[in-house]
Amino acid sequence: MLATVIDRGALRLEERPDPTPEPAHVVVANEFAGVNAADLLQRRGVYPAPPGWPADVPGMELAGRVLEVGPGVDATLRGRRVCAIVGGGAQATRTLVPAAHLIEVPDTVSLAAAGGFAEAFVTAYDALVLQGHLAAGERLLVSGASGGVGTAAVQTGRLLGAHVTAVTRAGAHRSELLALGAHEVVALEDVATLEPVDVVLELVGAAHLSLALGRLADFARVVVIGVAGGGSRVDLDLLGVMRTRATLTGSTLRSRTHDEKADVIARARDALLEPWRRGEITVPIARTFALADVLDAYAYFAEPGKFGKVLLAVAPGPS
Amino acid sequence: MLATVIDRGALRLEERPDPTPEPAHVVVANEFAGVNAADLLQRRGVYPAPPGWPADVPGMELAGRVLEVGPGVDATLRGRRVCAIVGGGAQATRTLVPAAHLIEVPDTVSLAAAGGFAEAFVTAYDALVLQGHLAAGERLLVSGASGGVGTAAVQTGRLLGAHVTAVTRAGAHRSELLALGAHEVVALEDVATLEPVDVVLELVGAAHLSLALGRLADFARVVVIGVAGGGSRVDLDLLGVMRTRATLTGSTLRSRTHDEKADVIARARDALLEPWRRGEITVPIARTFALADVLDAYAYFAEPGKFGKVLLAVAPGPS
Repeated sequence: MLATVIDRGALRLEERPDPTPEPAHVVVANEFAGVNAADLLQRRGVYPAPPGWPADVPGMELAGRVLEVGPGVDATLRGRRVCAIVGGGAQATRTLVPAAHLIEVPDTVSLAAAGGFAEAFVTAYDALVLQGHLAAGERLLVSGASGGVGTAAVQTGRLLGAHVTAVTRAGAHRSELLALGAHEVVALEDVATLEPVDVVLELVGAAHLSLALGRLADFARVVVIGVAGGGSRVDLDLLGVMRTRATLTGSTLRSRTHDEKADVIARARDALLEPWRRGEITVPIARTFALADVLDAYAYFAEPGKFGKVLLAVAPGPS
Repeated sequence: MLATVIDRGALRLEERPDPTPEPAHVVVANEFAGVNAADLLQRRGVYPAPPGWPADVPGMELAGRVLEVGPGVDATLRGRRVCAIVGGGAQATRTLVPAAHLIEVPDTVSLAAAGGFAEAFVTAYDALVLQGHLAAGERLLVSGASGGVGTAAVQTGRLLGAHVTAVTRAGAHRSELLALGAHEVVALEDVATLEPVDVVLELVGAAHLSLALGRLADFARVVVIGVAGGGSRVDLDLLGVMRTRATLTGSTLRSRTHDEKADVIARARDALLEPWRRGEITVPIARTFALADVLDAYAYFAEPGKFGKVLLAVAPGPS
């Protein structure tokens, strides 16, 4: 297989042996893979892949067709159009994926769009529902709404019946975010004037979070998923926490065990697959790069101002 | 009735009209009342009583006998030995208390000990179990273990089957805390060397909490209940939260609705009443002052180095 390889900060394509199907796993012939902030961190050596995943092949989400199934896996999966979130190894033409982690791609959705679905939407669903306990009628603030998880969170929040406020630098991408279901789009400096919010999804980091912490409703839940753009240390007012009875938590999907991931993916699938099939949720694609242009893709990802997912066309084919 | 009254920072005793029994309430003839940090804050004007409670009579816990019952209240309560946590008004010879908030004092326990039970143990139970989800076999760190809530939390943690580490300034009160069930007693500066903890109960504030935040086990729960002694703003490492999947929350009982309090009190009663009756949990009393000496009691409370509760003997009698 052809794989993106990280070698002491450098990024290059390399021929590697194809993975062989292990028990309870499948080998996917990838067509598209997403680029995520984690990949850029991994390239810089600060976010290694968890144990059990390829150490030097980045990429946390993919879409393609099941090529081979391992022992104990339903053989009828072979040939199916699937997408998946993985601990690493997606930016290659083949990836070994636990069968329990597969999401079957609805026939109404292209494999390109599916290549940016799994990481963004499973992360958003986990954060909003399983960590944030977002309920219909509550106010949701998505901090960093223009990125992959942000656009997924705006749509998922809307789907769950929440009032969604999308926060972006300078209130950018207003029309796109309103089209995805945001009730309002505000700039960072407007957060201080918002009505109190029930759930904060923080995707940028401390600089954004500090402002949102001043607008918590009673029993607010603050879920921190990303800090790459805003710093990782926040000055937290404990009296404010006590007064509002707020809860702050955070997590990454990547570090979880296979069983934990299977559980989260199953829940997200139950909630999101049908709306995805009907087109009620969608993956906005900022730009798609050929695998050969992976360096350009990473450079583009690092630039501000994109809207939606950055994809690699790993092995473009009919989808 | 004779009542402690706060008047622009001054504290004095004053004759006030006796409360009359409202529907679903009882009037308690108090014998003992606890002194809590909240009273000193209220005196300084920074922690007003919540709506529906006496605005200028401090005191958040009491023990005595039911003197009168209001409409809708079981008349056989009259004369019973009870203790209660209240939103204010306990440091007086009479207090109006919602009947649903009463805790009947076991016949093995003196009303003096009962006077320091309700605030400390209901707060500890709420924090450890209902907010912190402490489970048997987990490691509990109690930061500020020598005070009223601290000594209650050490005992409650032990009763729940947790491994209890008591943290006090300079590791003081070692023998007393070990006698209450702490597995180890450490000084603040030793926190950095502890094994990772599952639940942190923070009773002191940011200065203590900063150290505990460096010792969180995966899925740790941090519950902040008091900040008076250590500052209210903490520098929180969001990457650490994400890595450990920790949760930070906090709350006070005082601000909750009557129904919420009734629920918490009922749960604490179910879990703690029988162990209290059997003497497995107990209220260590630092010192008891006559109501006439309430100024001295507040001054003593403000001093460091006490162990257990500070009480006022409101109307000492046979108990």
